[in-house]
Amino acid sequence: MLTASPLARRAAELSASFPAPHFPAELEPGVIALDSGFASPQLLPDLSRFAVAALTRHREESLQYSAPQGHPALRAWLARYMNEDGCRLEPQNVLIVNGAKHGLDLICRLLLDEGDAIVVSAPTYFSAIPIFRSFGAEFIEIGHDEHGLAVDELERVLEQRAALRQPWPKFVYLVADFHNPTGVAMARTRREALVACAQRHGIAIVEDNPYRRVRFEGESLPTLKAFERVGEVLHVGTFSKLIAPGLRIGWIAARADWIARLMQLKSDGGSNPLIQRMVLDFCSSEHFSAHVERVQCAYREHRDRMVAALRSHLPELSMDVPHGGYYLWLTLPPGVDGDELARGAAQAGVNLIAGSRFYASGGRQVSPCNHIRLSYSFASPDQIEQGIRRLADVYRKQLAA
Amino acid sequence: MLTASPLARRAAELSASFPAPHFPAELEPGVIALDSGFASPQLLPDLSRFAVAALTRHREESLQYSAPQGHPALRAWLARYMNEDGCRLEPQNVLIVNGAKHGLDLICRLLLDEGDAIVVSAPTYFSAIPIFRSFGAEFIEIGHDEHGLAVDELERVLEQRAALRQPWPKFVYLVADFHNPTGVAMARTRREALVACAQRHGIAIVEDNPYRRVRFEGESLPTLKAFERVGEVLHVGTFSKLIAPGLRIGWIAARADWIARLMQLKSDGGSNPLIQRMVLDFCSSEHFSAHVERVQCAYREHRDRMVAALRSHLPELSMDVPHGGYYLWLTLPPGVDGDELARGAAQAGVNLIAGSRFYASGGRQVSPCNHIRLSYSFASPDQIEQGIRRLADVYRKQLAA
Repeated sequence: MLTASPLARRAAELSASFPAPHFPAELEPGVIALDSGFASPQLLPDLSRFAVAALTRHREESLQYSAPQGHPALRAWLARYMNEDGCRLEPQNVLIVNGAKHGLDLICRLLLDEGDAIVVSAPTYFSAIPIFRSFGAEFIEIGHDEHGLAVDELERVLEQRAALRQPWPKFVYLVADFHNPTGVAMARTRREALVACAQRHGIAIVEDNPYRRVRFEGESLPTLKAFERVGEVLHVGTFSKLIAPGLRIGWIAARADWIARLMQLKSDGGSNPLIQRMVLDFCSSEHFSAHVERVQCAYREHRDRMVAALRSHLPELSMDVPHGGYYLWLTLPPGVDGDELARGAAQAGVNLIAGSRFYASGGRQVSPCNHIRLSYSFASPDQIEQGIRRLADVYRKQLAA
Repeated sequence: MLTASPLARRAAELSASFPAPHFPAELEPGVIALDSGFASPQLLPDLSRFAVAALTRHREESLQYSAPQGHPALRAWLARYMNEDGCRLEPQNVLIVNGAKHGLDLICRLLLDEGDAIVVSAPTYFSAIPIFRSFGAEFIEIGHDEHGLAVDELERVLEQRAALRQPWPKFVYLVADFHNPTGVAMARTRREALVACAQRHGIAIVEDNPYRRVRFEGESLPTLKAFERVGEVLHVGTFSKLIAPGLRIGWIAARADWIARLMQLKSDGGSNPLIQRMVLDFCSSEHFSAHVERVQCAYREHRDRMVAALRSHLPELSMDVPHGGYYLWLTLPPGVDGDELARGAAQAGVNLIAGSRFYASGGRQVSPCNHIRLSYSFASPDQIEQGIRRLADVYRKQLAA
């Protein structure tokens, strides 16, 4: 009988090592979800009026096949939106995709061949790992500190590879703004150094930037895309964290010749035109900036509640307070194991993710196990407080055991 | 500087040989589009009330991330819907995807390895060709007559391959109901013979079935999926032709173990939950059967108008009148070239597609050039009449030249 392709066999192995997060509907009553990047239910906007307009005034546009590159007005809006962050984009530099993961998949199709090396931070966003690995990528893991990716370490590794005549990595994959899982916003000098390094060596940068506008305080730095000189940055954006995850609309901003090639690889009949029209009208309306402000205020409150609860109930854990994004990365004292803590917490009714899950080399060599990642986006402030209390109980029981 | 992957280079070549159809918005005024499978604008239903319900009553479900396999109630509805056609499916046999092309892409990921052979009809649906070829598939083209795929020819080719110790093809790809481009509904004996042949040799069947319910007369035969014995058929369905192309929601129905593997290959954050809810509520409402009837009546009228215009203005062209679907396949008399006719027609303001575009081997060996495909879905009956008059003028001028 039929056998699965090598790609499908690899996907099965990956699937076993990277289990999916829990969906809210699947949670047992009383369980507090600090594990995944779902939106706060209170922040999901009322988009009905935009849907009605799309399905009546713009019915033909919204219900026929749509242009492969995406709605021209939405691409123009996105170019302007990113130019506010220092980019110099035209609508032709934007391709609409079905969410950020679809964008990463297309970029892998564009650039990767079986066995190619790519650079990721250690730790890195765990849902990106199986996508890269399904294309046969080899990972070069580079350290990540409170200022972002350790670009000097990357330079040393590249020099070593040159000395050993190993091929350059194809790209550096990075969440520069409110990094997942550490919450770090990359420092300006590091951004400049990374773009200069990539340009010098002819390596692309894949900038995955879902959390940029979810900033609570401090000044925004330009995106990596804004620092580029010769079009070395492919920027992946999404409306999932800013408006709603279920929209399944994201974009890639890149050099026009790369966008043309990415379009050739996107044989899907166009991304959903109804959602594109709804997003365009919502973002062009006066509701958009009010919504972004509401998102920032609410998640700031969530973060503050989590930080206060941690300081009060688990003062011995070390953390860098994030200035934005969805996540808090905790470093555990010696002798406390993140995987064990995550298992114990799940039994006590609070879901979180062990830090070891965020390393691309996981499963093949030992990943650091002295971290946990807490998400403060989905749970309410009161649930967050209660979740941290439960976590503190588990922690003390495990310490005492 | 960076170079594109082998996959991306192949996509660029394919893109040049299979140009995209024209989008209605791109048409010059007065041009009549008989070239592509867009829906009749009058048949796009008013889905506003379903969108409002999804975005208010079901807001969390519609705007958070969704389950990777798709909405359970929609999968249950689809299982029942296909069981009316003789299948024996459970909701676990259904995977929701982002349209039929996405379904084909996932099936290729599941089954194909570079250089694998697959069987396609000659002619075949042209948008499927670049998807298959992007996975490095080699095509075995099997003839197609007024009863559907020539299964006896397939048997002979398989025997030859066995004698030459060539590997079996991985699957047979086929549009069994109102085949694109020929409009043929496969005969019952052929369906039985194909499924028996595939089972005997352990070859999968990929049944692409967008047009099944767009039937104007005659009795429906069971789908290929309904004839299977050991789960050898992967059925790809879509709401594009039944409700609206822009929904970008389709499904794969297959053995549960294959569905589980396909899910592992679909790392996209779930198909759009808002659209899934809208489709579920529309299909579960009393509007659905009325809508299907409206679609059947309208396209029957479109077809009748086209057939009558052809009989009146181009009686020398041979055709089999389709009993459903979107397309009419014309055979030209000796000495008339389909590509030349299509070019001349475009200059005269009527777009259609030369038959040579529908052969998987096109570009490498000579494809039959004595056919054209006319689509009667998008243009109005009056436009169809006018388009056929223009085509007849071009035809007579080319004959006289």
